[in-house]
Amino acid sequence: MNKQRVTLNCDMGESFGIWPMGSDELVMPWVDMANIACGFHASDPHVMAKTVALAKHYNVKVGAHPGYQDLSGFGRRSIPHTAAQITEIVLYQVGALKAFCQYHDVPLHYVKPHGALYNDMMADEEVFRAIAEAVSVFALPLMILATTDNQRYLDIADIFDVPLLFEAFADRSYQEDGRLTPRSQVNAVYHNADDIYNQAMQIATYGCVTTVSGTRVLLEADTICVHGDNPESIALVQRLSQTLAK
Amino acid sequence: MNKQRVTLNCDMGESFGIWPMGSDELVMPWVDMANIACGFHASDPHVMAKTVALAKHYNVKVGAHPGYQDLSGFGRRSIPHTAAQITEIVLYQVGALKAFCQYHDVPLHYVKPHGALYNDMMADEEVFRAIAEAVSVFALPLMILATTDNQRYLDIADIFDVPLLFEAFADRSYQEDGRLTPRSQVNAVYHNADDIYNQAMQIATYGCVTTVSGTRVLLEADTICVHGDNPESIALVQRLSQTLAK
Amino acid sequence: MNKQRVTLNCDMGESFGIWPMGSDELVMPWVDMANIACGFHASDPHVMAKTVALAKHYNVKVGAHPGYQDLSGFGRRSIPHTAAQITEIVLYQVGALKAFCQYHDVPLHYVKPHGALYNDMMADEEVFRAIAEAVSVFALPLMILATTDNQRYLDIADIFDVPLLFEAFADRSYQEDGRLTPRSQVNAVYHNADDIYNQAMQIATYGCVTTVSGTRVLLEADTICVHGDNPESIALVQRLSQTLAK
Amino acid sequence: MNKQRVTLNCDMGESFGIWPMGSDELVMPWVDMANIACGFHASDPHVMAKTVALAKHYNVKVGAHPGYQDLSGFGRRSIPHTAAQITEIVLYQVGALKAFCQYHDVPLHYVKPHGALYNDMMADEEVFRAIAEAVSVFALPLMILATTDNQRYLDIADIFDVPLLFEAFADRSYQEDGRLTPRSQVNAVYHNADDIYNQAMQIATYGCVTTVSGTRVLLEADTICVHGDNPESIALVQRLSQTLAK
Repeated sequence: MNKQRVTLNCDMGESFGIWPMGSDELVMPWVDMANIACGFHASDPHVMAKTVALAKHYNVKVGAHPGYQDLSGFGRRSIPHTAAQITEIVLYQVGALKAFCQYHDVPLHYVKPHGALYNDMMADEEVFRAIAEAVSVFALPLMILATTDNQRYLDIADIFDVPLLFEAFADRSYQEDGRLTPRSQVNAVYHNADDIYNQAMQIATYGCVTTVSGTRVLLEADTICVHGDNPESIALVQRLSQTLAK
Repeated sequence: MNKQRVTLNCDMGESFGIWPMGSDELVMPWVDMANIACGFHASDPHVMAKTVALAKHYNVKVGAHPGYQDLSGFGRRSIPHTAAQITEIVLYQVGALKAFCQYHDVPLHYVKPHGALYNDMMADEEVFRAIAEAVSVFALPLMILATTDNQRYLDIADIFDVPLLFEAFADRSYQEDGRLTPRSQVNAVYHNADDIYNQAMQIATYGCVTTVSGTRVLLEADTICVHGDNPESIALVQRLSQTLAK
Repeated sequence: MNKQRVTLNCDMGESFGIWPMGSDELVMPWVDMANIACGFHASDPHVMAKTVALAKHYNVKVGAHPGYQDLSGFGRRSIPHTAAQITEIVLYQVGALKAFCQYHDVPLHYVKPHGALYNDMMADEEVFRAIAEAVSVFALPLMILATTDNQRYLDIADIFDVPLLFEAFADRSYQEDGRLTPRSQVNAVYHNADDIYNQAMQIATYGCVTTVSGTRVLLEADTICVHGDNPESIALVQRLSQTLAK
Repeated sequence: MNKQRVTLNCDMGESFGIWPMGSDELVMPWVDMANIACGFHASDPHVMAKTVALAKHYNVKVGAHPGYQDLSGFGRRSIPHTAAQITEIVLYQVGALKAFCQYHDVPLHYVKPHGALYNDMMADEEVFRAIAEAVSVFALPLMILATTDNQRYLDIADIFDVPLLFEAFADRSYQEDGRLTPRSQVNAVYHNADDIYNQAMQIATYGCVTTVSGTRVLLEADTICVHGDNPESIALVQRLSQTLAK
């Protein structure tokens, strides 16, 4: 491959007030991109400052991870918004995170929506456009889900002059149409470390995934989303990081 | 006077969700600088977007008006913060407002803290420093209360390379030491339109105010804070604006 | 009619912090039942205390008016909840309001859900059951929308041993099937005071409404929901109150 | 002693949304009284429901643990309130928790303020009175800090007809005047399990503590506050529980 190697991205900075979440200190050394929560679904100004500083320390690219304003639901509930309101909540959150990047003198590299906002973006073109409009203000790339039809999103993003980054999931199973198996189904998530490792390497090396029905679909991804919730997942991130770096 | 004329600044964008506040549309045409709330003590992303657009329409300079995170108390309660936390909440809010300025393609001109944060800034040098540190990241001026000893604040602000803007109040009485009469005292606030107009003109023209005890103190102010809560105050802002513009 | 006369109910206590809403002092004397917000979509402990005291002063029955936790959206956005969560948010809010009733030594008379929670209750039986379960804990009646098929709801409410109160709207047009015309349609809301007065009297006197297509549908209602947002609507409430009291 | 044996109380239900806190399942079996957060400084309706059910399962007395509305600061920051507002926030929170007690058919036994509200109550008689006024509405006892002058608080509480429960701390050192050593001092907190166990037993058996200067002061306590943050503290709670039950 003469394209850039596939990177690892991870949601970070999801603590809130006195409540810790995740193991950012242990995961940060092994990823390339940190999707940092912006205070609407998780985090607060202190956590944001600390997480940007941690990313800087390990030379990890900082991304804004805006979500719906819903601490109670961790941004996982789709809350009705007009298109204008979506543009506005993304502007607000990205602007806020950017201030911490300026404070720590690192660039803000990209924007990746969180949770229900991410899902709504993939499912509803009006939401995608509203987000693209906000992201265009910062002249940053927008990270979205890789599908078998990346071009569809590229065409819309071009209108806003917004580059796209496509991400794939190592621990989620894919269906024949290239979409993620819904979490409501039993085989939606891989739990075995080798399965996750193998899918990540398949995406990174061959640009494809084996679906739940055994077929293979092409999936062009710039980056793979990993998690660092427990010792096993952190070990896996480390293993992936070391292999991909070779 | 060969210095720039004294400007009028006004708190704006203090609605929240369904709850309106103020008469921004009626006041905006008559002021020079709009202190726009940033969502912590008032406002929300939609109100911020709308208020920045309104300021742009009337060619009014946009300032960020960050406060303590306290919608219930409208930012008027002093909530204990560490110095680092104060820097962080100011970074967050100014960054958020700046995003709306970029969206509407207008510059962000200055930062003026709100309510209890403003009072704490004037009373506690550590708070002043924490705010100056945040403001320095944006290379903006900080607006503070004009006192008889502006130099004291200029010296500290210089450490952070932050220019200061000094504001005076037209409707608040001053004491012999040049400080505002505390609101707990009966003569703290002027209600008569002529009294307010006269004090504003005295500050703008002669750089001094007549104190409650009848003496005069020097008060170098760049700008006068006005309010637009009711028809009388709006008429007064208009009158002041028209006189100062001459 | 040998049944109890139709009452007037009105949403009250919808101010929040420094932001006033409505004219509770002017409307309270003319209504029978006050639906008092509980702090999730509007209000706060101070407003709740004040509003219960005002209801007591005018001998108005106090009802709890719980909604989704959404100050930003005034409870008008349907936020995904499990059935258990709906029971829990209703328990929480009704319990909170009941404390203010105990404080002011007045009974809590009923529960009427607000906004999107109200709509979800009418549209989704699981939500209706979840609310009924919460309300049953307080041994109170639940106020819901009168339809042409009140029995359907009575049957379910019986399982929870919850009495129902049916309300109709004086200022909303009804369709042939007895449902409200959706707000998205142009003729959804009556603005003419006589139209509103006449529909209220038709409901109160004859237990029916004339639909948008000119037919009449039976609508058994215990109470009519009125609004007190402006001088015209307050005058109308007064007029209705005086007529119904005869 | 012919009085009732000293009980163990513990703060519980301090998770919020997706963020867990504490090990309530492991501690609940070993305590007598659960101080359950009410959603202002921690918790939410779902956590409250779950925690009351857990207390019921282990036959633990439920207490309301109201605090300042400050999720960001976990209720540890003293936020300025008028006396009326303090009464109102306590009414609101106790009412809300009581609804979950009614739902699970267990009595609400007492009220113990949390964090900064607790400290303000002990330091400021006006706050104490405001809380007592709210608690009197529920005809419940109020739990406060045991001091060498319990009578002072009993006299005020009598005005509101509110019984008091006095609590002591096993892991905090006491000063010669019977007050807790401020947390700002190095020897404020005991970390050694035996030290904590011994102080608890000294309070429970002899009604006194040995102060930091080696003297002994009388401290009449009805209950001892314990913590269950980590395996060591949980083991200690278990050990204390087993000894006190003999």
